Amino acid sequence: RINGERLWDSLMEMAEFGLTPKGGCKRLVGTELDGKARDLFVKWVEDCGCTVTVDKFGNMFARRDGLNNDLPAVATGSHLDTQPTGGKFDGVFGVLAGVEVLRTLHENNIVTEAPMEFTVWTNEEGSRFQPAMQGSGVYVGRFDLETELNKTDVDGIRLGDELEKIGYIGDAEPGSRNFGAFFEAHIEQGPILEDQEKVIGVVRLGQGIRWYNVSVKGRESHSGTTPMYLRNDAMVASSKIITEIEELAGRYDNGLGTVGFMQVFPNSRNVIPGEVKFSVDLRNPNADVLTKMDEEFQAFCAKVAKERNIEIEVDNFWYFAPVEFNASDDIKKAAEELDYSHMDIYAGAGHDACYMADIVPTGMIFTPCKDGISHNELEDTKPEECEAGANVLLHAMLGASER
Amino acid sequence: RINGERLWDSLMEMAEFGLTPKGGCKRLVGTELDGKARDLFVKWVEDCGCTVTVDKFGNMFARRDGLNNDLPAVATGSHLDTQPTGGKFDGVFGVLAGVEVLRTLHENNIVTEAPMEFTVWTNEEGSRFQPAMQGSGVYVGRFDLETELNKTDVDGIRLGDELEKIGYIGDAEPGSRNFGAFFEAHIEQGPILEDQEKVIGVVRLGQGIRWYNVSVKGRESHSGTTPMYLRNDAMVASSKIITEIEELAGRYDNGLGTVGFMQVFPNSRNVIPGEVKFSVDLRNPNADVLTKMDEEFQAFCAKVAKERNIEIEVDNFWYFAPVEFNASDDIKKAAEELDYSHMDIYAGAGHDACYMADIVPTGMIFTPCKDGISHNELEDTKPEECEAGANVLLHAMLGASER
Ligand SMILES: NC(=O)NCCC(=O)O
Ligand SMILES: NC(=O)NCCC(=O)O
Repeated sequence: RINGERLWDSLMEMAEFGLTPKGGCKRLVGTELDGKARDLFVKWVEDCGCTVTVDKFGNMFARRDGLNNDLPAVATGSHLDTQPTGGKFDGVFGVLAGVEVLRTLHENNIVTEAPMEFTVWTNEEGSRFQPAMQGSGVYVGRFDLETELNKTDVDGIRLGDELEKIGYIGDAEPGSRNFGAFFEAHIEQGPILEDQEKVIGVVRLGQGIRWYNVSVKGRESHSGTTPMYLRNDAMVASSKIITEIEELAGRYDNGLGTVGFMQVFPNSRNVIPGEVKFSVDLRNPNADVLTKMDEEFQAFCAKVAKERNIEIEVDNFWYFAPVEFNASDDIKKAAEELDYSHMDIYAGAGHDACYMADIVPTGMIFTPCKDGISHNELEDTKPEECEAGANVLLHAMLGASER
Repeated sequence: RINGERLWDSLMEMAEFGLTPKGGCKRLVGTELDGKARDLFVKWVEDCGCTVTVDKFGNMFARRDGLNNDLPAVATGSHLDTQPTGGKFDGVFGVLAGVEVLRTLHENNIVTEAPMEFTVWTNEEGSRFQPAMQGSGVYVGRFDLETELNKTDVDGIRLGDELEKIGYIGDAEPGSRNFGAFFEAHIEQGPILEDQEKVIGVVRLGQGIRWYNVSVKGRESHSGTTPMYLRNDAMVASSKIITEIEELAGRYDNGLGTVGFMQVFPNSRNVIPGEVKFSVDLRNPNADVLTKMDEEFQAFCAKVAKERNIEIEVDNFWYFAPVEFNASDDIKKAAEELDYSHMDIYAGAGHDACYMADIVPTGMIFTPCKDGISHNELEDTKPEECEAGANVLLHAMLGASER
């Protein structure tokens, strides 16, 4: 069994890089804080005798040799980047649960049959650069390396330059590790485990996601001299779409629709906005339903554009199809061995494991999340819940290393 | 008569400070470009023998002595600041029409009975700092000097510091000039003169304006894990209000309602916004109607807050009551003398003259505006229209100086 106290202390130590006044964490990918968090990870895994490889997208792999190093490695990991007003556990828990597994093996001098790898993926959050799960997506070949390195943030800063600056662009080709299984522990980020009083969620599915950039172009004019009937107001047109997204999502079982990001031009209070850009995030566990949501959304945008004589561009730049995890039973078995209460669950958020499932048997462990609140500085969980998740991870990894 | 070509050339020369690729002008108050524009004004008026006084709010007064310098001065002027994506004429035309009047008097060695003053008011636009017509408002005593100098822009930069930096904070007390009349020439910024084929608008009224800061506070949470019914989405709540503002304005004769400015927090595409701040601009020429609009708007915000369990603060930080211009007949008389077609009109935008009307007989001259489009880089007008406006200004000022 792992050491729950040590795991919790490490979580709190890592949270220092970007700790916010409200007790959350702001550690955007590619920033100096991201660099410091990665440095600490390197120190921790090297203290346990690992060697660290960094690939050309900044994904990190700490390797612990096994008895038979020709066997594919059993891997785990998650991400160290956070939302601008994120919590201390989202992603970080998965990385540090791995570190705790490593420490447990190290201090007990356990040499596993297969080697193990402890990973950190670049930009899982998708907040500063899009899309999300970018590092694992590049790793499995869903995205092109150069295209993703060239992505820029709202200030036009290039991701590749940021990774270079913090010293985390390596030589390894993405996709070049030899993995036999991948497991990821993660805080649930939703209310279900808490509500059902279960300690472990056996994640069966990652739901589908569609991300859009919407650009609404009207005509700038004076707020005091332009009659209502002569306006082509990009802000009102956008608001019509945003209120419809809420209604649209509500019409479908498990439908979700969110506008989290917006930019207004020229953003001056006596100018009718000439342009509004905003993000749309539509989700559903059922691919067919998500397709219908997409069609309805796009049709609504076209209708608003026509009615208001406004140009609306809808760029569905990212589609993530629902994914089934094919190593879930390893998680379930480990939870049962350890006698933790558990249930099957689906992931509302995207995770690096969702892309890893493309190339290797993959399983995900969820742990409870206080009030189901995540992507919020108040995100919280209990030490014993983290401990349980890390124990399940240890057992799942040990089980897989013996196959 | 004034020299129309020289006026036009000066307009084009001034527009160089902040000229945009689309042929508009970006010269925000307090910036280096604002400083350069003011310097050029100083050079031009000093070339005509004027002395320039700057007051503690950066308002500028170029004085041309008359035969009887104990008489109150006949003054004119407007502003040199623009919107972020503004035109070349809004405000600038009024300042340079004054300069052209000055040059005409100077080259013809005309000494008027009363002295004349040519003014530039600080921050008329109200885009970078609020409210609008801030300089003239401070001058007439509507606003407190220190409070307004302490206003900050979205980046937290203080107006007083910016004026200091460009060298335009003077010693004169606001309100200390001795004025007998004030005239302002301005591009109409609306479509009526063009539509009615009139060259001069005799402005009878400045309509009422209410400016608000609205803050909507919901709860941040994850876009992929938070069911629709558990959300307190500040963005959707804001969108409901924005679409209602359009409808509300449409229910009243001459009602206008605009949301031109918005900030979203944390502004991350997979985070349900926890806070949205936006501006509201409501206008009506009738004070009672504007009061009703205000009440309806505030009641709607309260309703949304209640229905959605969201905190909504509405700060109506600026109310500008409709103002009647009591020296309009001077404008009408000048237009008739010069045989220009003219009509009575009301101002949709606020103007420095609206505040000057508090303390001195005031008149405004409108000139046509291409397609009624202003607060847009495409704002346009014709040289002969500017010429006509400046001629009317010359005659109105000469008339007043003989009283
Ligand atoms: N785990 C997590 O919050 N991932 C961010 C990607 C998403 O939006 O689902
Ligand atoms: N003239 C002008 O555009 N003034 C800006 C103040 C307003 O919003 O009316």
